[in-house]
Amino acid sequence: MAKFVAGIDLGGTNIKAALVSEDREVVAKLSRPTDAGKGPQPLMDAMASAVRDMLHEAGHDIGDLLAAGFGAPGPMNWQTGVVFQPPNLPGWRDVPLAAEMQQRLGVPCFVDNDANVAAYGEFWMGAGRGTENMAVLTLGTGVGGGVIVFGKLLRGPDGTAAELGHLVVQRDGRESTSPARGALEAYASVTGMVRTAREGLEAGKESALVSRCGGDWDKLTGAMISEEAKAGDTFARWVFDETATWLGLGIVSIVHYQNPEKVVLCGGMIAAGDMLFDTVRRVVQENTFDVPGKRCQIVPAGLGADSGVLGAAGVAHARWQDSQKR
Amino acid sequence: MAKFVAGIDLGGTNIKAALVSEDREVVAKLSRPTDAGKGPQPLMDAMASAVRDMLHEAGHDIGDLLAAGFGAPGPMNWQTGVVFQPPNLPGWRDVPLAAEMQQRLGVPCFVDNDANVAAYGEFWMGAGRGTENMAVLTLGTGVGGGVIVFGKLLRGPDGTAAELGHLVVQRDGRESTSPARGALEAYASVTGMVRTAREGLEAGKESALVSRCGGDWDKLTGAMISEEAKAGDTFARWVFDETATWLGLGIVSIVHYQNPEKVVLCGGMIAAGDMLFDTVRRVVQENTFDVPGKRCQIVPAGLGADSGVLGAAGVAHARWQDSQKR
Repeated sequence: MAKFVAGIDLGGTNIKAALVSEDREVVAKLSRPTDAGKGPQPLMDAMASAVRDMLHEAGHDIGDLLAAGFGAPGPMNWQTGVVFQPPNLPGWRDVPLAAEMQQRLGVPCFVDNDANVAAYGEFWMGAGRGTENMAVLTLGTGVGGGVIVFGKLLRGPDGTAAELGHLVVQRDGRESTSPARGALEAYASVTGMVRTAREGLEAGKESALVSRCGGDWDKLTGAMISEEAKAGDTFARWVFDETATWLGLGIVSIVHYQNPEKVVLCGGMIAAGDMLFDTVRRVVQENTFDVPGKRCQIVPAGLGADSGVLGAAGVAHARWQDSQKR
Repeated sequence: MAKFVAGIDLGGTNIKAALVSEDREVVAKLSRPTDAGKGPQPLMDAMASAVRDMLHEAGHDIGDLLAAGFGAPGPMNWQTGVVFQPPNLPGWRDVPLAAEMQQRLGVPCFVDNDANVAAYGEFWMGAGRGTENMAVLTLGTGVGGGVIVFGKLLRGPDGTAAELGHLVVQRDGRESTSPARGALEAYASVTGMVRTAREGLEAGKESALVSRCGGDWDKLTGAMISEEAKAGDTFARWVFDETATWLGLGIVSIVHYQNPEKVVLCGGMIAAGDMLFDTVRRVVQENTFDVPGKRCQIVPAGLGADSGVLGAAGVAHARWQDSQKR
C-alpha cells in the first residue's frame, strides 16, 4: 500500500500544500489564504485541516501519511523545528512549529527554511533529479540558496549554510540587507536589478522605462524591466545583462566551490529565458576551469512555483527515512 | 596489533613521507630530495623504498601497512589515481601513480591533490580535529582550498571542488593564473601580495622596501613585506592589511557557503600571526551573519608544514576504510 508525505509552503499570502507518494507522484495539491492576522494557532489548525483534506480528496486517511514538512522563511532551528520570527508572519515569535503540527497530525513533522526546501524540491523531483551535487538560487527580493552535496542538503552546524546570496562579488560594493557589502544579492536579486535601473534612470538614461514610470521611480518593477528589455529597449536590456553578469559571477564561485552537476535558477526572473541564461552561461564559461565549467548545467527550475511545496514534502521524506535508520 | 598508513607529499624539491598509526600517532617521518630529472620510474621506486625504510625504522614490516596515500599538485583523476601533468615534475605525463605504487608496495594506494590532502590532514589530526565541517586555505604562489562537509572531503564529480582560490571577489578585477577575473588568489596569495606592493612602489610610495629591493622590484618577496610590516613600515603594513582584507572577504563567502566550524589557514604567510589574523577576523565578523560568523573560528594550521604529508596518510586511511565497506 502506497504511503505519502505532505509538504506545506508557509507563505505570507497563501499556504500551499501538496501530498506526494513515496514514488514522487503528486496526488493532491491545494492553496488557501494564509490569514496571518489571526495568529499562529488558527493558522496551524488550518494547515492540519489542509493535510487532512488532501488525504481525503485522494482517497486516503491519516494512517497513510508518513510525515509532513514545512518550509518557512527567516531564522529557525531546523533541528528542533522552532521558527523564530518569520518576516512574512507578523506576531509569530519562537513558535515550535514542528511540535505543534506533530501534535495535530500525529506524524513526524519537520521544518526547514524556504530556500533549502526549494532546493530539495528541485533535487528530489525537479530539474536536479538524478544529481548528487547541485545548487539552487532563488531570485526574488533577495537571492536565496540551497546546496546539495553527497545527495544531501548542506545545512551546517547552525543551519545557515548555503546562503549563496551573501557570497561577496565586489569589495566595498553595494550595501543591501546582506551583512556583506558587495553581496551577490545586492546585484542579482530583483531588488538589485531594479536598483541598477533606477541608478541609470536617475542619472538621465533614456529608456521606455521613463514613461512607464511617469518619472516616479518607485513604480519600477523587475517585470517592467524584463518586458522592456525583451521589447528591445537598449537601456532595459543593459540593466538585464548587468544583472545576469553579476549572477554569472556568483555562479563562477559556486562552480569552483562544489563542482556541481547543475545550478538551478528559480523565481520570476527566469521567465526571461535565453535573455537571462545566455549571458549567465557565457560569464560562467569565460571565468571557470574547463572541466567543471563544462560539467555544470545552468537550468531553470523544473517545478516552477512548486519547488518549495514539493521540496517540503521531499525534506520530510528524507528526514523521516533518516529517523528510521537511527 | 597496530596497523599503519603511509603518506607521501610529492613535492618538486623534496619527497616527504610519514608513517601514521590508525590511532593517528606519527611513528616515522622522512624527507628526501625528489631528483625529478631522472623521470617517473626511479622516483616511484624511491618512494616505495621510503615507505619500507619507515616501516623498518619503526620496527614493523609491510604486512603492518594498510594503505598508502600520495598528495600531488596539478590536475589528476583521483579515482583512477592517474596524475596528468604535475607542474613541479617535468616529464611526468599521465602517470598511473596509484597503480604503479600499488604494484611496488602490495597495498591499496590512493592519489589526491595537494590542497585536498592538506585539508584532510588538518581535519584528521590538526587544527580541525573534531569538526565535521571546515575549510582550509593554503596561501602560497596561489591560494589552494580544501572543504570538509559531513566529515568528508568535498571533491565533486570531477574532483575539482573546493577551488577556493578561484572564488570571485571583484568583478573585472585582477587577472591571474585563475580563469576567473578578480579571483581570490589574485589578491590573497603571496603572489597577489607582492603584486599589491609592487603596484604601490611603482607608483612612488615610500617604504623601506625600496632600499631592500635596490629599486629592482623583481626582488620583492612576501617574506620581505611581512618583515617590514612587522618592523613598522607604513606602506608594507598597508600591503599586508590589504592582503588580509581580501582574504577575509573570501572567508566571508566560505562562512555563508558552508557554515564551517573552522577555517584553517596554511602556508608561510601565517607566520605573521596576529598581524594577519586580527584583520581577517575583523573583516569576517563585519560581513557575515552573527550566528555563523561567531561559530567560525579562523585558525592557523596545526600541523605546520606537515598538513600535506599527514593528510595523504589520512586520506589513504579514509579511502581504505571506504573500500572495506563496499
